[in-house]
Amino acid sequence: MTEYQSMTREQMEAELAVQRAALEEFQKRGLRLDMSRGKPSPEQLDLSDGMLECRDFRGVTGIDSRNYGNLEGMPEARVFFAEMLGAKPEEVFVGGNSSLNMMYSMVDLGARLGYPGGKGSWLADKPKFLCPAPGYDRHFRVTEYLGFELVTVPMLPTGPDMDIVEELVLDERVKGIWCVPLYSNPDGYSYSDETVRRLAKMKTGASDFRIFWDNAYCVHHVRAKHDVILNMLDECRAAGCENRALMFCSLSKVTYPGASVAAMAASEENIKFILKNIFPMLISFDKMNQMRHVWFLKDMKGVEAHMEKHRAIIEPKFDAVLTTLERDLAPAGIARWTNPNGGYFLSLYTMEGCAKRTVELCKQAGAVLTGAGASYPHGVDPHDSNIRIAPTYPSLDEIRQASELLCICVKIATLEKLLAE
Amino acid sequence: MTEYQSMTREQMEAELAVQRAALEEFQKRGLRLDMSRGKPSPEQLDLSDGMLECRDFRGVTGIDSRNYGNLEGMPEARVFFAEMLGAKPEEVFVGGNSSLNMMYSMVDLGARLGYPGGKGSWLADKPKFLCPAPGYDRHFRVTEYLGFELVTVPMLPTGPDMDIVEELVLDERVKGIWCVPLYSNPDGYSYSDETVRRLAKMKTGASDFRIFWDNAYCVHHVRAKHDVILNMLDECRAAGCENRALMFCSLSKVTYPGASVAAMAASEENIKFILKNIFPMLISFDKMNQMRHVWFLKDMKGVEAHMEKHRAIIEPKFDAVLTTLERDLAPAGIARWTNPNGGYFLSLYTMEGCAKRTVELCKQAGAVLTGAGASYPHGVDPHDSNIRIAPTYPSLDEIRQASELLCICVKIATLEKLLAE
Repeated sequence: MTEYQSMTREQMEAELAVQRAALEEFQKRGLRLDMSRGKPSPEQLDLSDGMLECRDFRGVTGIDSRNYGNLEGMPEARVFFAEMLGAKPEEVFVGGNSSLNMMYSMVDLGARLGYPGGKGSWLADKPKFLCPAPGYDRHFRVTEYLGFELVTVPMLPTGPDMDIVEELVLDERVKGIWCVPLYSNPDGYSYSDETVRRLAKMKTGASDFRIFWDNAYCVHHVRAKHDVILNMLDECRAAGCENRALMFCSLSKVTYPGASVAAMAASEENIKFILKNIFPMLISFDKMNQMRHVWFLKDMKGVEAHMEKHRAIIEPKFDAVLTTLERDLAPAGIARWTNPNGGYFLSLYTMEGCAKRTVELCKQAGAVLTGAGASYPHGVDPHDSNIRIAPTYPSLDEIRQASELLCICVKIATLEKLLAE
Repeated sequence: MTEYQSMTREQMEAELAVQRAALEEFQKRGLRLDMSRGKPSPEQLDLSDGMLECRDFRGVTGIDSRNYGNLEGMPEARVFFAEMLGAKPEEVFVGGNSSLNMMYSMVDLGARLGYPGGKGSWLADKPKFLCPAPGYDRHFRVTEYLGFELVTVPMLPTGPDMDIVEELVLDERVKGIWCVPLYSNPDGYSYSDETVRRLAKMKTGASDFRIFWDNAYCVHHVRAKHDVILNMLDECRAAGCENRALMFCSLSKVTYPGASVAAMAASEENIKFILKNIFPMLISFDKMNQMRHVWFLKDMKGVEAHMEKHRAIIEPKFDAVLTTLERDLAPAGIARWTNPNGGYFLSLYTMEGCAKRTVELCKQAGAVLTGAGASYPHGVDPHDSNIRIAPTYPSLDEIRQASELLCICVKIATLEKLLAE
């Protein structure tokens, strides 16, 4: 196949006709495919059903997890997440079913009161928040909703563009940054050691600047080869600013989305401050569910063995997408995509101005993709190029069909654009 | 026995010596009793262990509760709580493990944005919140923490003093009122029909005034004879202000405290507004736990049967306290107490200025009571008279000992006070 950009107008029109015919064929199939959200498939959920056999709700220290109390989490859950997060148990707070909710509470806390070392309420300061983009739409929404100005930072294969970050954080109004450091959403990039160290060391205008380190995919490998990143709390401590890091993780994509356990780690000073401010909000989190998870997964060895079972289901789905993109799109020279070692997504980058149209065409043929632009602050991709692909939920056969359809739609959108120029 | 107030000084001194000797006997026993918190006892928790056998996590409509989605709650859970709250399923939002957390979110939402029909952020208005006292300390703390001025309203056996409430709510800065309408904490009073109707009908200065109707003990009867209250949402609707009522309930003291399910009901306009604003905070609540509860309890008939098992455990404990108070305190004429048909508490009212000293003396002998004053805004009882008694957690024998000790301490505190006058 000729690369599209080298085609004559007539060749393009002929090719467009071919692709439109292919699209029509797809439309006739009456497909209903969904590659829009990072949801585990039903067979992945089944992997955790053994957890329901747990009857061991009294902790090793004698605490009955069935009753009120222990806002900070069950002692054994703190030990479990300390290992997962790379911190000491006393630096860990184990919460409820949602790490997003935990992060929301932490941004809200900063908005209302600021953090230790700061000058009080962030909101009083017309605050800004750094959003490496493309990134996780629900992160950006939290800070937008709570009244922060979102500042876009370009995302590189090594993490956020640190030259730009270091410049921006000198502004006292910049209070924090969103990070998904391992297998970023949606690109699947992992932060380089240099990026982590520069984040830990950089001079910030706000004395209570916080890094929201959402290690959402810390055990979610797609490939046998794993990316490895530095520990942000350790690096901040080494740089003399241990209060800077707020690290989060979740078992939602280890066991059951929305019915699992979230936790965070930070300096003891931060954790003390946070627990004091969580206290007015509730009596205690669901400690029975904490116990259930620790009983089932035991420790990081247990988690790793469990995640290998997920990987066996997920890897072929990523492969199906990648094989199709390579076969159908590479020859046309009209797109690039990422090929991550883990996480829940990959990014497809179309030619500028083609992402929205591609997503629209897919939808017309029955395949729902994440809305184009969703991975950017306020839902606007300045290049209209990024499409987030979530291959985990549909079946392998559905993934194959959806990927083929996606390639057809990218081609049509690109040809339409080239012909309109 | 002579009433203390009719005693001569010498008689009082002799009686004080007797009671101090009795206290010393108690101290020798090295007791460790706790009547401070409204916690179910371990045998009450055991009543729900059958719930753990639930394996039915796919809803009647085909929704897999194990995965993300359905922020508003599982359809069957909305039906269940609609019956419990006396509302339509579409007026119900089923949340996570904590009704206190749900109420916190609702106060916070008003603080930030106000409610439909209002002029925006309550916080912009130096807001006040009505606190019928004695009441639930954790309610008062939520509004205190979020920056409201707490306005105390006297609590009567028929509910808050409505003459005072109707006067206060004319102030535009008064944004809401805390209510535990059935078996109030700590008195165990239930709102009269007149109180409910006046709350629904009263003219308020704030056009988005909200009644926080925490029906925490809606199925928690201690006696075979049940108190019955009107439905606040119905009454508000009848009065032409259906948006005024936010009704909450929880299964924490039906199944497992902190590991159960909370829900709320309100007008559809309120629920729509609330869900829109919960959306940025998390992806979904723990729907598996919602399913587990509906599977186990089934409907209100199932709940009633289950609560009868609780009642069989709780009623003798309330009786043990009341019998002891009647036997040891009534003849001295130095205290009064409530005798509720349900809930988790009863109130003991000492002579003015004796509550703190009583609690202190109990503590010295190894019995922890709720801090005197805890049931009042900012933890200050203006009469230093109210002591909240929580008889559910300790064993029957412990309750008997703690009640005896309590009576001795009330006597000593009262005699000390009378002798000092």
